[in-house]
Amino acid sequence: MPQDLMRFSVAMPEELLMRFDELVARRGLAKNRSEVVRDLVREALVEDECATPGRIVMGTLTIVYDHHAADLQDKLHSIQHDFFENIVSTLHVHLDAHSCLEVIVLKGETGLVQGVANKILGTKGVKTGRLVLTTTGEHI
Amino acid sequence: MPQDLMRFSVAMPEELLMRFDELVARRGLAKNRSEVVRDLVREALVEDECATPGRIVMGTLTIVYDHHAADLQDKLHSIQHDFFENIVSTLHVHLDAHSCLEVIVLKGETGLVQGVANKILGTKGVKTGRLVLTTTGEHI
Amino acid sequence: MPQDLMRFSVAMPEELLMRFDELVARRGLAKNRSEVVRDLVREALVEDECATPGRIVMGTLTIVYDHHAADLQDKLHSIQHDFFENIVSTLHVHLDAHSCLEVIVLKGETGLVQGVANKILGTKGVKTGRLVLTTTGEHI
Amino acid sequence: MPQDLMRFSVAMPEELLMRFDELVARRGLAKNRSEVVRDLVREALVEDECATPGRIVMGTLTIVYDHHAADLQDKLHSIQHDFFENIVSTLHVHLDAHSCLEVIVLKGETGLVQGVANKILGTKGVKTGRLVLTTTGEHI
Repeated sequence: MPQDLMRFSVAMPEELLMRFDELVARRGLAKNRSEVVRDLVREALVEDECATPGRIVMGTLTIVYDHHAADLQDKLHSIQHDFFENIVSTLHVHLDAHSCLEVIVLKGETGLVQGVANKILGTKGVKTGRLVLTTTGEHI
Repeated sequence: MPQDLMRFSVAMPEELLMRFDELVARRGLAKNRSEVVRDLVREALVEDECATPGRIVMGTLTIVYDHHAADLQDKLHSIQHDFFENIVSTLHVHLDAHSCLEVIVLKGETGLVQGVANKILGTKGVKTGRLVLTTTGEHI
Repeated sequence: MPQDLMRFSVAMPEELLMRFDELVARRGLAKNRSEVVRDLVREALVEDECATPGRIVMGTLTIVYDHHAADLQDKLHSIQHDFFENIVSTLHVHLDAHSCLEVIVLKGETGLVQGVANKILGTKGVKTGRLVLTTTGEHI
Repeated sequence: MPQDLMRFSVAMPEELLMRFDELVARRGLAKNRSEVVRDLVREALVEDECATPGRIVMGTLTIVYDHHAADLQDKLHSIQHDFFENIVSTLHVHLDAHSCLEVIVLKGETGLVQGVANKILGTKGVKTGRLVLTTTGEHI
């Protein structure tokens, strides 16, 4: 699993390189130029991947809902069971006497993950929510 | 907790209303105009809230990392313990032999949540990640 | 062209309505609840429209480039002539001795507009750029 | 103005390098690894710059409005004259019998550019709009 590292050289105008070095510094103490280039490449690959229909991606859907809303938890459970193959795991936080935050981790084809997320977001009583897509980590 | 509902009337050109009704239909079977207006208002409020320094918000940070990277888990744990007051909970998924997905739920002032997220994203070995901010659910 | 206004009523919990009224106030002095609901509905419709393949949309592509880069202006002109049916107009600003900002207004099917934008963004010498999609204004 | 090019070497696992080369290919025929690394670095710098209060940035605000709305053009002109120092130029497109698209190029401190944009977006009759921030092109 420690893969062979390949090397290539990058040419950059002096001024851009100076500003890049400031960016490297802002990104954290332990990081060097190579590391930040790899980060930027991975970000671009993940963005492309998540925009491509047919790719298998991970999604995390963060929703806030009122747990007093009639039948809401039943409905959310029933959606999650309908798509149990795409729902990896769920994390629940009690925000206050009324509100819950739930993070639902999804896995599947881009369009399917978005479809399941929309079904959940469209459920009456879900106050707000947002889906983030990311990579399954393969080849990255 | 079932709050008093207030009513107000909205005027809309006929064509826009027709397109709104299509949007209501797309947002889910059980939803009506009132419900979708409330959704849109909440989305706008949450967006404003998350862009305002000083507000207490929830954050979910999704990261993908290689669990073979030297000391990475120790470093991630140590950051999380430094900010234990802002880290509510963590969900972990084993993606494959190398990669892990972790969702870290944060709570705190907008800038602080972003700062902690950047510290985690800046750790060597974290391959990619994204932060989503949302509401604590109060008054929404 | 002054269309008939239709009316419908919206129910909202008192607390949410108070926060909505603050939002209305922030959106500008002359705006009232109806106006802001229409804004939010239009934003949601435009977002949906721009995410739907096959729809005719407007795009504005903002690029920054170095006008000393060899042949760059020739290449940009040649792309724009290849797609003259989709390129409505162009605005040019001289930023300093080296850099130019150009805004290119595009019209066409979502995917085509994105394709033309990517071609321009992929031209050697274009330093950075961003595409924004919006509505053609019909039925909105 | 042809600046001295500096060189540095980047280490990358073989698999990631293969996927990076696919990305380089997708970004346009004439591009090589160095060029795409510079693009990614510039994108990251521009994003940071635009998120930093106090920086001088360029903005392009794209709005769609109904030119029959009472006094709208007068109001838009009056805002633009109030901030004439920050409004570089304007491009106008007649979309159909009712709708206009206008692109307003702004220059100034991040917060000021956003403030002027919000004033314009908050004007009654502006149907929808979006602001994009980018660099002035210096040191990039």
